[in-house]
Amino acid sequence: MEYTHEKYLEMIDEALKVYLGSVSDGQDLVLDAMKYSAEGGGKRIRPVLTLEFCRVCGGDVQRALPFACAVEMIHTYSLIHDDLPCMDNDDMRRGKPSCHKAFGEEYALLAGDGLLTLAFETLSKAEDVKVDTFKEALFTLSNLAGINGMVGGQVLDLKAEKSKPTLSALQTIDRLKTGALIKAACTLGCLASEKYDEQKIAAASVYAENIGLAFQIVDDILDVTSDTATLGKPVGSDDKNEKITYVKLMGIEKSQATVDELTKEAVNALGVFDGDTSFLENLAYKLASRKK
Amino acid sequence: MEYTHEKYLEMIDEALKVYLGSVSDGQDLVLDAMKYSAEGGGKRIRPVLTLEFCRVCGGDVQRALPFACAVEMIHTYSLIHDDLPCMDNDDMRRGKPSCHKAFGEEYALLAGDGLLTLAFETLSKAEDVKVDTFKEALFTLSNLAGINGMVGGQVLDLKAEKSKPTLSALQTIDRLKTGALIKAACTLGCLASEKYDEQKIAAASVYAENIGLAFQIVDDILDVTSDTATLGKPVGSDDKNEKITYVKLMGIEKSQATVDELTKEAVNALGVFDGDTSFLENLAYKLASRKK
Repeated sequence: MEYTHEKYLEMIDEALKVYLGSVSDGQDLVLDAMKYSAEGGGKRIRPVLTLEFCRVCGGDVQRALPFACAVEMIHTYSLIHDDLPCMDNDDMRRGKPSCHKAFGEEYALLAGDGLLTLAFETLSKAEDVKVDTFKEALFTLSNLAGINGMVGGQVLDLKAEKSKPTLSALQTIDRLKTGALIKAACTLGCLASEKYDEQKIAAASVYAENIGLAFQIVDDILDVTSDTATLGKPVGSDDKNEKITYVKLMGIEKSQATVDELTKEAVNALGVFDGDTSFLENLAYKLASRKK
Repeated sequence: MEYTHEKYLEMIDEALKVYLGSVSDGQDLVLDAMKYSAEGGGKRIRPVLTLEFCRVCGGDVQRALPFACAVEMIHTYSLIHDDLPCMDNDDMRRGKPSCHKAFGEEYALLAGDGLLTLAFETLSKAEDVKVDTFKEALFTLSNLAGINGMVGGQVLDLKAEKSKPTLSALQTIDRLKTGALIKAACTLGCLASEKYDEQKIAAASVYAENIGLAFQIVDDILDVTSDTATLGKPVGSDDKNEKITYVKLMGIEKSQATVDELTKEAVNALGVFDGDTSFLENLAYKLASRKK
């Protein structure tokens, strides 16, 4: 079977529907809020990476679905909590009102908590997994989503609002805030295949770290070079919010050159896999040259 | 070796210190907030139950520590998020300022997220566990902490503030909001022993459900019969907040009789265990007759 991006999206959406399931009367309001934020939104880059890394390792993609959906649920919860008034206070997300705007702050808080918890319940549904693989997957996901990963990055980001970060500090923030979960997504794909070794895990991490950082730099470039109609959100917001960006620290030209370099490094890391890696190569190039 | 309540507390505090560990410079503020709420607080009823159920099943108590600490971290995160302004808006917790009062709302939010995530990382540290046991433990904890358990109970509780719940609705709220995690604590203890069967798991659930509900009813009774000095928090707050309680629905006498009945049922359930269950019996009676 040939797996395309569209096929993956279909599989992920279908699996998310099953895992989000249903609850007893009364608890449905929080489930509605969870579904509102989890369903039909975003590029699904993380779960797609999980499925494809499982495939290039020679694993069965179907088996990787609980891992992929767990990563996507954690990504979604982080967006819900990040949008809350005490954090970024964002009213819009993916072109519609953010979760707390649609459901109220208390339900958005609980929807985030519910999704984070459901991510681990979903992981427990993985079938025919060796105990060491399973424990490693649980450790990887929770460690990279927690204070040594994504949550840690959010803390550094909060602090950076008050002091102007250097280039290296900015890279640390992004490596944790967005890079860590992308790394978890790629690593979990390898683990789910049960055909991984240290070398493959390391290569997946290098790929993840490089496309993760490139992704952030492109975000900063588009905020300057794009227009609101193309981007689907207001441009120039970084300048307005006096946010330190890669563009401000390096200029547009150097930023673009860095994106190209990071993308090349990501693609080069794929050499260790026996399977066809063109999907992952194309994804890296596509993310680097995206216009929105 | 004889395990007393004090010995258990010592083991739990020591293990929590290790699992809470340390982080890189910069992320320390959120770790401080997590430690502030997790360390040296509360009765530690849940993790003590995990350790003792492991023991009465004939298991090695040391092996149950990651399970016990995971449960306690989830309990602590739920208190932090429950105290937030958009939820109960409580300024005090365990006799000191609540987490968001001490660290700010954004750090309290992240400290809760960090603790919930760290709970699952801690679970991944369990050693020499069979894969089925491990998956069952992960499922039990995440399921009973999530929208079908604790988070679901918080949603029902939010709704109940607007409508006056019946006795049966109140029981459903408490069974989920507090009972579910107590049930997870007892079940995980059995699982950690690797010497469990269906009958033991079922008995642990019956014990958990009955002491959980009894605990809530005693809370309501003390709010009417105790005084602020003994209780360590203001009495009469339920009346002030127009909260529907067991005392209002059944009267004090019937409430006390129900506590006694539930405690007896909890103790009766312990008959299936081969080990000495006097610790669990005494704990049930102590919780029923507590004065604060």
